Amino acid sequence: MTISLPRNHPIILATSLLIAAGSAPALADTLIDHVDGFTLTEDGKVERLDGLLIGNDGKVLRVLHRGDKRPAKVDYLLDGKGRVLMPGLIDAHVHVMEVGLGALTLDLSTTRSLAEAQEKIAAYAAAHPDHPWILGRGWNQEVWGLGRFPTAAELDAVVKDRPVWLSRADGHAGWANSAALAAAGVSAATQPPVGGRIERVGANQQPAGVLVDAAQELVGRVVPQPRPEDRDLAFAKAQELFLKRGLTAVADMGASIEDWQAFRRSGDLGALRIRIMAYAAGTEAMTLIAGSQPSPWLYDDKLRLGGVKLYLDGALGSRGALLKAPYADAPGQSGLPLLNEAQLRNLMSRAALDKFQVAVHAIGDKANARVLDAIAELSETYKGDRRWRIEHAQVIDPVDLPRLGQHGTIASMQPVHQTSDRLMAEARLGPARLNGAYAWASALKAGGRLAFGSDAPVELPDPWAGLAAAITRQDENGQPYGGWQPQERVTREDALAAYTTGAAYAGFAETRFGRLAPGLRADFILVDRDPLMVSSSELRATRVLETWVGGQKVWSAETASTP
Amino acid sequence: MTISLPRNHPIILATSLLIAAGSAPALADTLIDHVDGFTLTEDGKVERLDGLLIGNDGKVLRVLHRGDKRPAKVDYLLDGKGRVLMPGLIDAHVHVMEVGLGALTLDLSTTRSLAEAQEKIAAYAAAHPDHPWILGRGWNQEVWGLGRFPTAAELDAVVKDRPVWLSRADGHAGWANSAALAAAGVSAATQPPVGGRIERVGANQQPAGVLVDAAQELVGRVVPQPRPEDRDLAFAKAQELFLKRGLTAVADMGASIEDWQAFRRSGDLGALRIRIMAYAAGTEAMTLIAGSQPSPWLYDDKLRLGGVKLYLDGALGSRGALLKAPYADAPGQSGLPLLNEAQLRNLMSRAALDKFQVAVHAIGDKANARVLDAIAELSETYKGDRRWRIEHAQVIDPVDLPRLGQHGTIASMQPVHQTSDRLMAEARLGPARLNGAYAWASALKAGGRLAFGSDAPVELPDPWAGLAAAITRQDENGQPYGGWQPQERVTREDALAAYTTGAAYAGFAETRFGRLAPGLRADFILVDRDPLMVSSSELRATRVLETWVGGQKVWSAETASTP
Repeated sequence: MTISLPRNHPIILATSLLIAAGSAPALADTLIDHVDGFTLTEDGKVERLDGLLIGNDGKVLRVLHRGDKRPAKVDYLLDGKGRVLMPGLIDAHVHVMEVGLGALTLDLSTTRSLAEAQEKIAAYAAAHPDHPWILGRGWNQEVWGLGRFPTAAELDAVVKDRPVWLSRADGHAGWANSAALAAAGVSAATQPPVGGRIERVGANQQPAGVLVDAAQELVGRVVPQPRPEDRDLAFAKAQELFLKRGLTAVADMGASIEDWQAFRRSGDLGALRIRIMAYAAGTEAMTLIAGSQPSPWLYDDKLRLGGVKLYLDGALGSRGALLKAPYADAPGQSGLPLLNEAQLRNLMSRAALDKFQVAVHAIGDKANARVLDAIAELSETYKGDRRWRIEHAQVIDPVDLPRLGQHGTIASMQPVHQTSDRLMAEARLGPARLNGAYAWASALKAGGRLAFGSDAPVELPDPWAGLAAAITRQDENGQPYGGWQPQERVTREDALAAYTTGAAYAGFAETRFGRLAPGLRADFILVDRDPLMVSSSELRATRVLETWVGGQKVWSAETASTP
Repeated sequence: MTISLPRNHPIILATSLLIAAGSAPALADTLIDHVDGFTLTEDGKVERLDGLLIGNDGKVLRVLHRGDKRPAKVDYLLDGKGRVLMPGLIDAHVHVMEVGLGALTLDLSTTRSLAEAQEKIAAYAAAHPDHPWILGRGWNQEVWGLGRFPTAAELDAVVKDRPVWLSRADGHAGWANSAALAAAGVSAATQPPVGGRIERVGANQQPAGVLVDAAQELVGRVVPQPRPEDRDLAFAKAQELFLKRGLTAVADMGASIEDWQAFRRSGDLGALRIRIMAYAAGTEAMTLIAGSQPSPWLYDDKLRLGGVKLYLDGALGSRGALLKAPYADAPGQSGLPLLNEAQLRNLMSRAALDKFQVAVHAIGDKANARVLDAIAELSETYKGDRRWRIEHAQVIDPVDLPRLGQHGTIASMQPVHQTSDRLMAEARLGPARLNGAYAWASALKAGGRLAFGSDAPVELPDPWAGLAAAITRQDENGQPYGGWQPQERVTREDALAAYTTGAAYAGFAETRFGRLAPGLRADFILVDRDPLMVSSSELRATRVLETWVGGQKVWSAETASTP
């Protein structure tokens, strides 16, 4: 992808200004006083606070309560004027570079019909005559009420002259026009790679336009790659999108060497504003990036390559998730394993041997059972504090639920997936399997460690939507009334913990950030309401006023270029 | 390559100890006093000095002369006891990782005959039954007086059970046994890639065993790659080999992403002891490593990716160097261009556009003429301080010599190549072309900037041998009497400058290191004699006592693991 934005683009400017002017003094004691604040404690309790004293190393020196003596003199004083201060939130599962690159391409996530999408695609192509490919993402035929995948012909109707390639909202399918299929050489004779499917049409089995899971690579490999400057721009944009929502740290679930180099370029130039716990996209990238052990924490705890992300299956929407029994709405299909059991163990072993943390994508109940089997088996060899992560852990057979509490397993789950997927999940799974679906409370009850995230760009990187979904099991319209499978709601404190201390723990970062306590990094946000007190719909609408990372103000609603 | 050394190997231990204990205080003012020292000044004059005051940032605060007032109190005082202190030397052309990896493989560089080499290979194979491949380097059929390349059969005679692959001393040819040729699928039917040659034998044109230049890749690509831990070990070893000879900085001529990651791992762990001015191995590596502009100076000026290394031709020894007229000893051959003129300009342009520095390997007179043409042409577009580097600039047509002084061109040359190559060069070039061969003084006279180096591991990374060769044009045995083409000798001061200020300038580092002056990094060495005073043979035998980088003692003869 080639994106040409001028050097005085707001993203570049915003970053430069922050570096040049500094929005808070760099090396000085700072007192944030007169706030109506709170943090979670090490044991998950709420602790109210009135002020924070921050050292010149960006770490909390003291948490101040009403009546505590303030230091006589500090270098920088911020009067909170009673605003709400709380720990910065942590998203335990995002795709950083995809969020940024996606923000620089066509966004179809708000389209409500195929026709609306077509209109938007046509307008975007007309507005970007210099783009050799039209790239985008975010379509969802379920939201459109289409009842089937869209087709190449429906794309050809609006863009014929250039290849068009659009990712489905969940990233597990791609939609190509005829020019893209031709560029990729995908024809009736093309066989899909293992773990992939080519949608077909007509008697002669022509490609219909949508490629599922591994088959996406057929087109993906001929799409022009982003240049480093595109990645730098995308990364600056992604940071902005995270910070404005109050995220002070994220786990990047699948960093390539190109992604990593962009993170480092940013760190080297002092432009890294958010903390990134990176997991490499496979063991080869892991070794290339970090060598024979996880990287140290770099740039004052702002970046670390701590582990590897593996994919065991696909997603529910595209019927790629690996199920124990066939799909309720496609009796011939049970999903596609992307790794067999030996491959899974070998890759997990390869990482664990060198003390890398393992994070396995598992959506279907069979995939989750297989990961749990592998964890149990490998835990005999790889002892100690391993924190095996299951990413999504979306559909779990109730017989497997208790195993989430064993071997220090972490359930890294995304509350908004539940509300987005609800109707689709009911169709795919049928009523009998909903008990173990998006089973947050059960995971906690089993003794599992919970970490919450968004899976952005699959969903918006919006922790407030996640918190609201977590405590209600309702979407932004309050649907369904009373919550879906409401027994799986979690308390407000548990939800906040999964977005702060739990997400930090999931990244081996709990001694560095995730709550406000002496010795930890001063990562906090000022918000326009008290998330502990307001209704769930008010919680969802929380506005972030300022975001501070390491005792430095790195984002402010007042000066933001993207409000 | 898979090398298994125990974790308590001296290299690892040496590095760990330095990190753990620190060999000098990290952040404190240091006074080095009572030395018999010197530095070069900005304009190339010798300045004597008696002491150095170093700030806690590792930079020189003051250069002290006899009678200057010393500070009343410093944190750390070293009494030099009259020893000789001088600026750390800089090697402007090495292959860092190859030096390190080479040091961990079989070294044939000291063998004086084929039989001696065979004996060494057999012994090494017997000593390493666990190595799936026997790898090594350093052979030279000219030194052996063989008059031809060695053969696969001569290797089979000593190792049959495993592949053997040995690099020629100049890196421009590789010698395989039959098992290696079989593993690579090289047969009578194999055509060499462009820029390469397969030596043949017999009526049926079987591969003889030696693959020249680009043809080396046929075997190279099936050799097991070093693991990251091998690279880390190799890098620690390379640093040791540089520091012990008094090098405090090197230019790495062709860094891959794997090399770069090893440098960064070392930097991230605080184990980077030497300064590296890195040039990427081609434009793809350049972009992957640094993105859209040279990297900043990292780790207190210890690492930077500033440019790209391109190869325009091969070497004289293997007749890969591109000559205007045929080889004197092979009238049908004129060498192999690795890039045509358009490719060369495109790659140079690709780098220069993003302000990367360009360093082009050019050995033959035709290759040098082509680079000079390209520099002249590109200088019209890419203005400003570009410092186009020609690496080796070994054989230059006298009509082209004046052009070395144009467009800020830098001649990056290796004095020891002249003494090593002398007889071979006479054979390859014939008497008529020797005037412009290894023409250091002419390069200076033309107004060219001179930077000296070793091309290690092609030669030892030994600046003392380089300095001695530079001022004598004689080898370590004093041959030939009076020096070879003695008009091309340079003065002792010019030779030292090419190994210090000139090499720093060639890497855009002259405001950071390369001499001893306030504000520059305190990189210096203590040696056992005065290089300005001693005879050339005594100069060659100079022993380094201590090596300091950034005001920190990073190597000492007393505690060295590899004396």
